[in-house]
Amino acid sequence: MTSSIFPKSRHKNRTEAKSFIKNLKKNTFPNSKRIYLQGSNNNIQVPMRQIHLNPTLINKNKNPIYKKNEPILVYDTSGPYGDPKTKININTGIQRFRENWIKTRQDSQYLNINYLNKKKYHLNSIQEKIYFGIKHNPIKAKKGKKVTQMHYAKTGIITPEMEFIAIRENMGRDILQNKIQYKNNNIKIPEKITAEFVRKEIADGRAIVPANINHPELEPMIIGQNFLVKVNANIGNSAITSSIEEEVEKLIWAIQWGADTVMDLSTGRNIQENREWIIRNSPVPIGTVPIYQALEKTKGKAEKLTWPIFKETLIEQAEQGIDYFTIHAGLLLHHIPMTTNRLTGIVSRGGAIIAKWCLSNNKENFLYEHFHDICNICADYDISISLGDGLRPGSIKDANDTAQFAELHTLGKLTKIAWENDIQVMIEGPGHIPINMIQYNMTEQLKYCHGAPFYTLGPITTDIAPGYDHFTSGIGAALIGSFGCAMLCYVTPKEHLGLPNKEDVKQGIIMYKIAAHAADLAKGHPGAQIRDDALSKARFEFRWEDQLNLAIDPLTARNYHNETLPEKIGELVDFCSMCGPKFCSMKISQEIRHCMKK
Amino acid sequence: MTSSIFPKSRHKNRTEAKSFIKNLKKNTFPNSKRIYLQGSNNNIQVPMRQIHLNPTLINKNKNPIYKKNEPILVYDTSGPYGDPKTKININTGIQRFRENWIKTRQDSQYLNINYLNKKKYHLNSIQEKIYFGIKHNPIKAKKGKKVTQMHYAKTGIITPEMEFIAIRENMGRDILQNKIQYKNNNIKIPEKITAEFVRKEIADGRAIVPANINHPELEPMIIGQNFLVKVNANIGNSAITSSIEEEVEKLIWAIQWGADTVMDLSTGRNIQENREWIIRNSPVPIGTVPIYQALEKTKGKAEKLTWPIFKETLIEQAEQGIDYFTIHAGLLLHHIPMTTNRLTGIVSRGGAIIAKWCLSNNKENFLYEHFHDICNICADYDISISLGDGLRPGSIKDANDTAQFAELHTLGKLTKIAWENDIQVMIEGPGHIPINMIQYNMTEQLKYCHGAPFYTLGPITTDIAPGYDHFTSGIGAALIGSFGCAMLCYVTPKEHLGLPNKEDVKQGIIMYKIAAHAADLAKGHPGAQIRDDALSKARFEFRWEDQLNLAIDPLTARNYHNETLPEKIGELVDFCSMCGPKFCSMKISQEIRHCMKK
Repeated sequence: MTSSIFPKSRHKNRTEAKSFIKNLKKNTFPNSKRIYLQGSNNNIQVPMRQIHLNPTLINKNKNPIYKKNEPILVYDTSGPYGDPKTKININTGIQRFRENWIKTRQDSQYLNINYLNKKKYHLNSIQEKIYFGIKHNPIKAKKGKKVTQMHYAKTGIITPEMEFIAIRENMGRDILQNKIQYKNNNIKIPEKITAEFVRKEIADGRAIVPANINHPELEPMIIGQNFLVKVNANIGNSAITSSIEEEVEKLIWAIQWGADTVMDLSTGRNIQENREWIIRNSPVPIGTVPIYQALEKTKGKAEKLTWPIFKETLIEQAEQGIDYFTIHAGLLLHHIPMTTNRLTGIVSRGGAIIAKWCLSNNKENFLYEHFHDICNICADYDISISLGDGLRPGSIKDANDTAQFAELHTLGKLTKIAWENDIQVMIEGPGHIPINMIQYNMTEQLKYCHGAPFYTLGPITTDIAPGYDHFTSGIGAALIGSFGCAMLCYVTPKEHLGLPNKEDVKQGIIMYKIAAHAADLAKGHPGAQIRDDALSKARFEFRWEDQLNLAIDPLTARNYHNETLPEKIGELVDFCSMCGPKFCSMKISQEIRHCMKK
Repeated sequence: MTSSIFPKSRHKNRTEAKSFIKNLKKNTFPNSKRIYLQGSNNNIQVPMRQIHLNPTLINKNKNPIYKKNEPILVYDTSGPYGDPKTKININTGIQRFRENWIKTRQDSQYLNINYLNKKKYHLNSIQEKIYFGIKHNPIKAKKGKKVTQMHYAKTGIITPEMEFIAIRENMGRDILQNKIQYKNNNIKIPEKITAEFVRKEIADGRAIVPANINHPELEPMIIGQNFLVKVNANIGNSAITSSIEEEVEKLIWAIQWGADTVMDLSTGRNIQENREWIIRNSPVPIGTVPIYQALEKTKGKAEKLTWPIFKETLIEQAEQGIDYFTIHAGLLLHHIPMTTNRLTGIVSRGGAIIAKWCLSNNKENFLYEHFHDICNICADYDISISLGDGLRPGSIKDANDTAQFAELHTLGKLTKIAWENDIQVMIEGPGHIPINMIQYNMTEQLKYCHGAPFYTLGPITTDIAPGYDHFTSGIGAALIGSFGCAMLCYVTPKEHLGLPNKEDVKQGIIMYKIAAHAADLAKGHPGAQIRDDALSKARFEFRWEDQLNLAIDPLTARNYHNETLPEKIGELVDFCSMCGPKFCSMKISQEIRHCMKK
């Protein structure tokens, strides 16, 4: 847990740093290799992790007969870190492969003067050594142009981003020989996801592609109910703990385990420089809650916030390349008294800040008042808006109350405004909700927000387990995902208690990848069940090696297996330590099959 | 993990053993104390864990005003191990407090000759030193008498067991001053659970009380859809690993974390003696799968099993005090070909054994043929039958298939037969089921099995995460619990990989206690939400000490908290390490309340 990827002065030991990346690439996923599925041209190369499988032994006699098992392709969020052929230098950032796609569209231009250079990070006394080495000049839409994926989609243009996403979502299913029979199909997901389907979903607002034109390092991904359920991981240092180094390392760690997007929720020192390192090294979209940084500028005094301060913050982050902003524009002045009788008041940080501003100034929420202005900024860079749920319930007792739904209805109105401006938008959701009330959240959200993607934190299904909130919330997340929630914001074991370390981040992501995948199966997403079937087949055939390699975390599975039966896994041991040789149901089951064939 | 409770030769260190029990009692649940709620007479003493809370600071000024917070009562499965006043001696077993209740009924008698003495454990070469020291003469129903709780219930008798259970299920809610408003009430659970309600549910077969008259150490508990969702933990050594010592220690460990019943799935050496130690020291019902022991007698050859061997095994276990038997009587000869096209065949060990027996002998399942005889044995000791699901699916692909439901329908028929014999019965369920198919399992089970309690293993909602199957299955467990499943059989992280160690057992139980509690909230069980509300109130008021003490695992929560903010928790620190003092939503939220009051 102490190794780091940072070379240079920040790290004593270069060897240590290199070995961190090496481990990421080699040891975590044995028998896997990085491949690329090519789109309509050379520039579209979609990364996949291919898991190689051993053949099935058909006949155990003297002349064994083997039958090949097709390799399995897995959606891969690890970007260049998952490609052993790519050289990584954290100081220069990862490859900016989307730059060409953006330039080709000829609707953006370089900014000569930009906020970042102008301001020279005046907010903090940052020492030279924590600067990110290379400064890229930011770009912005040309006057009169809109550069959002929604704009292109509405005008019928299929962008390379859309094509990339279609290939990615199919997970090579079209090239598999054995087609999978699915258990169900709740949601209207086509057999094969095409770029045109992607375009239509974006145009209709049912899905978003967070992809700032200043974040060309990003591998496009989509968030929408008719696609794979996505997982967001939060990182970010607070005033109390954490360093930039730890946060960037957490980013790479998070995407290795499958985080689809990462939110940088930093509130502490060096907030901008921290973000620069993260964006320049991130192949996944990065989201922020800009009001946290704005509040740094007023020295923590919510009541002192102003639209100019907030606007400046948005533009700074836009020029850096932030892909989506959480904006708490739906919390209105008259909603606040609705929280008076709550058990836990307002638990969203952004929500609490805005509520305090509204009450102190006795004015309507300035984010609501300036929502058109916010949309205009987002249109210039293609930043998606994640409409924050400032009034989400913070306890089972407060679930599904008037305050929560009053804000949701406002979010629906703001969604329409964003769409009028060709801005991609998703809606943030709760929070703490008992199991029996989860479906209603999804139904209401789709109804009031016109089908815009839902992005929930959990929900946590009981309050009694601090220390295990990845469990309490993973249950709710799987459930709401199966009902159509598009992205799940992970919760780590330390939620409510402290900031997560690397192991907490891993546990949180794995719980949420499981929840998302269980939801994909329930939704009948094409391709979701391929890996389940392959793993279960390997299990039934005692191909231990394959069973372990197909697991979400092969090394942990392998270690657990070896604890009780430390045999050579590669060998065909047709029983395991759970039951021993005499009691193995799978072994007997195979004998039964053999018996029935006679 | 290496400390043990075993004194005597098996343990080098008596001090170590004592400290294990001391830790169980003292350190695990700080600020908790054991209390007893008395029933209609002195003999009915229902154990509860009472969590003491600090008062709420109303006014922070010079003259602080405090408001008392009522202590919270928690359902406590830890038996005498949770009572610091009780002396434990593992060698003599725990108190046999139910002996008087049973004797008072005057419908049972001592056996002079019994299987255990007669056989002298002839099956294994057991050394003297692993004998359990004290031999209790077993009892059995007098000729013509039935001693089952269902029999009493049907004849209108309210037993002390029923009264005990009613008090236990209410969790002291009737003595709480602040009544809780519940979010929902899916299932018909009364405001206050009475002994008469318990009796009626047992009489109607909707609930069971596994309580062998030879297990008087047991604190009665109930399994039924209109009661708290229960959790079973499996222990048991296999041929490959584990010792008796480890298994008994796991029992105590499991009930400390909240296991409501424990199944002893041992298949290895010393199976009977192992069981004796477990029963004599267990305050919770113990279940077994008797066919595992029967198979030991045929040296692992399923085809050699006979009814006499099986019958003998049942009686041996009955006399020891096993509270419920898993019996795979619903798997019929003609069901077996239905599994031919399955991805993973038959994954239930018991199911595989029976299927092999049927095919090898080309005969109908002898457990089905002798089901009346099995009922007769169970009636003599009040053993509940858990009808095994030998054809449960072992992969997402095989979920809800013909084989699974064909067996379920047979289980429904057997339920009727059991009830005609006044035998309490529950139905075992899957297995591996995708989220969208879980509810159908519950609906079908209730329909075909006439409302008998459902007892499921998970279900596991995706196959891709060996090493994390407590996650994959906890999701399914919470969901099916919320639909009315009465008991959840836990799954540990090592499921599919190896035998669980103590830490795995803990992780499995905690995941399942969370799932069960989330289901209780969803069902609107009276009393379920009390602890959630108390914890959330403590959280909102920055009563850190109380928040941690109310947690399902206080020490883990405390350690996580201290990792990032190692302040004195008892002090009122009104922010935490997650956001730091400036960004704390709860702090701002309190300021807002203050602001609105003006």
